[in-house]
Amino acid sequence: MEALVLEKQHELQIRDITLDEPLGPHDVRIALRTVGVCGSDVHYYENGAIGHFVVRAPMVLGHEASGVITELGAEVTNFKIGDRVCMEPGIPDPNSKATRLGIYNLDPAVRFWATPPIHGVLRPSVVHPAAFTFKLPENISYAEGAMVEPLAVGMHAANKAKIRPGDVAVVMGAGPIGVLTALAALAGGCSQIIISDVVQPKLDLAAKLGPITPVNVAKESLVDVVNKLTDGWGADIVFEASGNERASAGVFEPLAPGGCVVYVGLPAKPIPYDVVAASVKEARVEHVFRYAHVYPRALALMGSGKLDVKPLITDTFGFADSIKAFDYAAHMPATSVKVQIIVAND
Amino acid sequence: MEALVLEKQHELQIRDITLDEPLGPHDVRIALRTVGVCGSDVHYYENGAIGHFVVRAPMVLGHEASGVITELGAEVTNFKIGDRVCMEPGIPDPNSKATRLGIYNLDPAVRFWATPPIHGVLRPSVVHPAAFTFKLPENISYAEGAMVEPLAVGMHAANKAKIRPGDVAVVMGAGPIGVLTALAALAGGCSQIIISDVVQPKLDLAAKLGPITPVNVAKESLVDVVNKLTDGWGADIVFEASGNERASAGVFEPLAPGGCVVYVGLPAKPIPYDVVAASVKEARVEHVFRYAHVYPRALALMGSGKLDVKPLITDTFGFADSIKAFDYAAHMPATSVKVQIIVAND
Amino acid sequence: MEALVLEKQHELQIRDITLDEPLGPHDVRIALRTVGVCGSDVHYYENGAIGHFVVRAPMVLGHEASGVITELGAEVTNFKIGDRVCMEPGIPDPNSKATRLGIYNLDPAVRFWATPPIHGVLRPSVVHPAAFTFKLPENISYAEGAMVEPLAVGMHAANKAKIRPGDVAVVMGAGPIGVLTALAALAGGCSQIIISDVVQPKLDLAAKLGPITPVNVAKESLVDVVNKLTDGWGADIVFEASGNERASAGVFEPLAPGGCVVYVGLPAKPIPYDVVAASVKEARVEHVFRYAHVYPRALALMGSGKLDVKPLITDTFGFADSIKAFDYAAHMPATSVKVQIIVAND
Amino acid sequence: MEALVLEKQHELQIRDITLDEPLGPHDVRIALRTVGVCGSDVHYYENGAIGHFVVRAPMVLGHEASGVITELGAEVTNFKIGDRVCMEPGIPDPNSKATRLGIYNLDPAVRFWATPPIHGVLRPSVVHPAAFTFKLPENISYAEGAMVEPLAVGMHAANKAKIRPGDVAVVMGAGPIGVLTALAALAGGCSQIIISDVVQPKLDLAAKLGPITPVNVAKESLVDVVNKLTDGWGADIVFEASGNERASAGVFEPLAPGGCVVYVGLPAKPIPYDVVAASVKEARVEHVFRYAHVYPRALALMGSGKLDVKPLITDTFGFADSIKAFDYAAHMPATSVKVQIIVAND
Repeated sequence: MEALVLEKQHELQIRDITLDEPLGPHDVRIALRTVGVCGSDVHYYENGAIGHFVVRAPMVLGHEASGVITELGAEVTNFKIGDRVCMEPGIPDPNSKATRLGIYNLDPAVRFWATPPIHGVLRPSVVHPAAFTFKLPENISYAEGAMVEPLAVGMHAANKAKIRPGDVAVVMGAGPIGVLTALAALAGGCSQIIISDVVQPKLDLAAKLGPITPVNVAKESLVDVVNKLTDGWGADIVFEASGNERASAGVFEPLAPGGCVVYVGLPAKPIPYDVVAASVKEARVEHVFRYAHVYPRALALMGSGKLDVKPLITDTFGFADSIKAFDYAAHMPATSVKVQIIVAND
Repeated sequence: MEALVLEKQHELQIRDITLDEPLGPHDVRIALRTVGVCGSDVHYYENGAIGHFVVRAPMVLGHEASGVITELGAEVTNFKIGDRVCMEPGIPDPNSKATRLGIYNLDPAVRFWATPPIHGVLRPSVVHPAAFTFKLPENISYAEGAMVEPLAVGMHAANKAKIRPGDVAVVMGAGPIGVLTALAALAGGCSQIIISDVVQPKLDLAAKLGPITPVNVAKESLVDVVNKLTDGWGADIVFEASGNERASAGVFEPLAPGGCVVYVGLPAKPIPYDVVAASVKEARVEHVFRYAHVYPRALALMGSGKLDVKPLITDTFGFADSIKAFDYAAHMPATSVKVQIIVAND
Repeated sequence: MEALVLEKQHELQIRDITLDEPLGPHDVRIALRTVGVCGSDVHYYENGAIGHFVVRAPMVLGHEASGVITELGAEVTNFKIGDRVCMEPGIPDPNSKATRLGIYNLDPAVRFWATPPIHGVLRPSVVHPAAFTFKLPENISYAEGAMVEPLAVGMHAANKAKIRPGDVAVVMGAGPIGVLTALAALAGGCSQIIISDVVQPKLDLAAKLGPITPVNVAKESLVDVVNKLTDGWGADIVFEASGNERASAGVFEPLAPGGCVVYVGLPAKPIPYDVVAASVKEARVEHVFRYAHVYPRALALMGSGKLDVKPLITDTFGFADSIKAFDYAAHMPATSVKVQIIVAND
Repeated sequence: MEALVLEKQHELQIRDITLDEPLGPHDVRIALRTVGVCGSDVHYYENGAIGHFVVRAPMVLGHEASGVITELGAEVTNFKIGDRVCMEPGIPDPNSKATRLGIYNLDPAVRFWATPPIHGVLRPSVVHPAAFTFKLPENISYAEGAMVEPLAVGMHAANKAKIRPGDVAVVMGAGPIGVLTALAALAGGCSQIIISDVVQPKLDLAAKLGPITPVNVAKESLVDVVNKLTDGWGADIVFEASGNERASAGVFEPLAPGGCVVYVGLPAKPIPYDVVAASVKEARVEHVFRYAHVYPRALALMGSGKLDVKPLITDTFGFADSIKAFDYAAHMPATSVKVQIIVAND
């Protein structure tokens, strides 16, 4: 099949590749439709590695995907051919202790699309477990379906925060994950979001998406804005989605007593962490690794109109222009959020 | 001062009453603006008692209230004269164990407006603890402010449910509390609500307020609708807000494994409760008594536009027509939800 | 192999039975050592059915079991031959939604030993998934290992209660499950237990096992004792382990405001449930179905000496006397708690 | 009255001091019996300050206290003269938002004994709110009662951890707070503790107090021991009670997936914090500030025999030797844990 293959660092090709994928009894075969370009895809393209995950052999890219079911495994009963779906890109070992406990995302044996040596899905078709495949509501397009993967990160963060209805949340960082976290937090019960960044166009875009107050921390104090909006009490939740070391270290300043911090961004190295500042507020600090059990929840919120990801799909390319899409994504303007590739149309 | 006084069962009067209310250091004095008529007010009017709370002396009615601050206690710093506010009608003993634990609503010593022998607030002014008085956001009217009290019941139920973003909830009963619970659950993170009742106009009204599917249980099966909308899994949460004995007994049928039931309505007598049905789903069952700590949350959601109570304010009377308002509320059509009395205008 | 077979109601035989059990890659083969007799085993013997589970074909009894590993599946790495183990008797479908969520006990496809038509383990050997097999600590005997199954019920109830250190708990019912729930609750953080029953010898035995106050409700008031021991505040947790209808209906009386009720016993029919009584205390009510994820926890507490089940093993029979053991268990004195059968010795 | 007064850094005196303490309606007057010497008391003695709390005027030391009630405020009903009690040393503002929410320990207006400028209780008597005074069980001595304050720190940490019955916990640091946290965690449901330190006598003492495995991290690897005891899964909970910067940074290494870290110790400056290491395990990190609502729980566990602090009371002085006690505490051997002063005998 013809796929977008990362041959090695800096070298992408659209070319034939043979992928032998037998259909197990609990699997489905899916024809791909839309695949989003993630920062990690671009990172492998530009650097050939993320941490200890190194591209040592040609690898198909892409893991934010939607498609249509073309074949059913012998024991699959909850799908039919023609169902429009999106897919969780990580497949855990069903026999691991973590999986059995319900925290399958923490299973070290997870096989995750486009994470070496596992192939991604910028290709015509893929075989996938039915259990990690999810029907799209009728009013949700393939393009929106391919947004569920990055949205799932924000949803999982919102889940971990244990939002109580009406909570005020800060989101640090107005990149794609920050904005999706803000949308997930609003759909998940927050009354309002205060989002911070230093790139004004990103803040401008975020401010249009709901009760979201933008704070350009190059120009004004986040703590001052939070205190003004909360009568000095602080934010119930702080989502750190910038991965920036300085932001990560400052999470306790805008936090309310008894509040919750969720680290979504991953700083490259250890951050200075003020245990005393966290203690006087008895902060609860949560950490997330990808996501678990949130795809159906994301789709439910999108399907009922409570969460709209369409404004974030800013750039679309055809499959033949996939390399162009990656080069664009690698240097995209601050007004762009998500680049998607249409692998095929219905 | 001139107040709406329930002299005894069936006998309401607008007349002068002397209420000596000294202003303590932590109190504020409030000029009333809008007061809603609650089912309990009407019940005292028609029956002279609710359970063991019996009207034995003339009592001012009304506890769903908004107003404007006219005087500040010596140590009140977080308000100024002229602030537009709404008020929690229950005042707990600050020295009780329940209050200290943060569950002040469970303090048996709570003094609650318009619950004998405590006077309500259908009158020109009241002295109230600043701690139980809450500023209205600028975009929230006195009429909406007076809706916070009944909304708080739904908010508290939504809080107890510990909604995870995207949960599907059933609300049994489409009366005022059912509809407000549905709005609170949607604002609090649910993706959609399935609301059941036997009165079609109530269902019709509810269906206009968001992703709310009405089910007339006189005509169709609630369980069938829930199963269809959830692929047979069931609802994550069931709010029982009808107080109806049969509905209350059937809460486990539409429930998902591991789901949560919140009893909001109070059936007049013990209901038949199927422990086995609850056990095979490991239901968590929560109970609520009034509310605690939710006024600021309700106001935050209303202020940010995530929760709109205006469609529920269906009937408004002037203070001089208060008795007429009560007679209307006692026999109101199914298309009416909330009757309010304007005590004074700014 | 030679097994204890329930041919039909009232008819037990020790006889040869052919059970074809291939060893899957994730399975282990276990030679049985000790098997406890559970009330449900006796119930099948005496009644031929429990609810809609009807014995329609000969079935081996027994599900409270320990043994020693004799053979390893190809992919089993965490055991070796000769390991002393006990086993969870329920095997869920690894592909069900409930299992994936971590609530595998709620999977309707669970295959549970000695629940028709699944054979139990009063026989020489069994093949079982390694994932539901657990190593015994060195200081734990086979007899104690076979107690983990009934203890798991109490452990799961203690888990659901979300005990906070120092909680005071009531356990209604001093039968085997009540006593094991009391021990689990003490090991799990409760400071003391008040246990109620009408059978004095059961209460006498329970009172010897730790800080457990017995209350014979035929002679004194449970609520009075609880109020005395808690300065009138009530018990933080009430475990209903009698299954008795009247006890089940009275769970809210000894409960503290904000307390938790766990229904462990299963009354035969719906109980009268006082929603108002539950509401004024904002009770959280939990339900349990068997157990999940608690075997390692039970073994850890037994291994470290925090929980001792030995005093509850009151009667032991050899395998050749299995039928005698069942007849004894069917009519055992109030001073007996657990009857066990030694299938084989090391 | 005659008190132990810290005149200024390095200067302690037993001398007369006039403390005017009127008895409010909700207060009790208490004659002191036993007062423990806390590290913070010693720190003020040696350094004249802790952080921004500076001793600018003579201050009575001591805040770990027990005593006997000698006088009752007009509205106190739950005590009688002669009751043996211990006291929480922090008094919050009953009108603060934090107090109302039940997190009174986070109220910035808390007045805490022996924290400048509030006097401590190494003196004959004190007036204290009844709400923060707690009856000693009959079998608990004044000396044990004075241990409740430091134990409360460990109890609060155990509470925050939300121990599930059978959890395995690591405690880093075998000082008084580490050991008390270990005891609280065991009483609160943990099956076993692995405690780490570099001072062997402290580890030796800890190992005698229950199922506690000592690890001298100067000689062996904590992670290795934890992995061995947990089959490589890791500890469910890690309590960091050393305040040591390097230990604080290493909390995620011995942690299990989905585990909880509680920072009990307060490192002097920000620690290097590995967000990535915390994320791959989805650690929940909790912080504590003193304690709230745990005195009755600590007393309940001590009273029922589940938690014994007596082995930790290693050194006792008479009041006349108070200065000697402080000089001893400032340089005490590793085999000493808690120094107490007997202010008076019954």
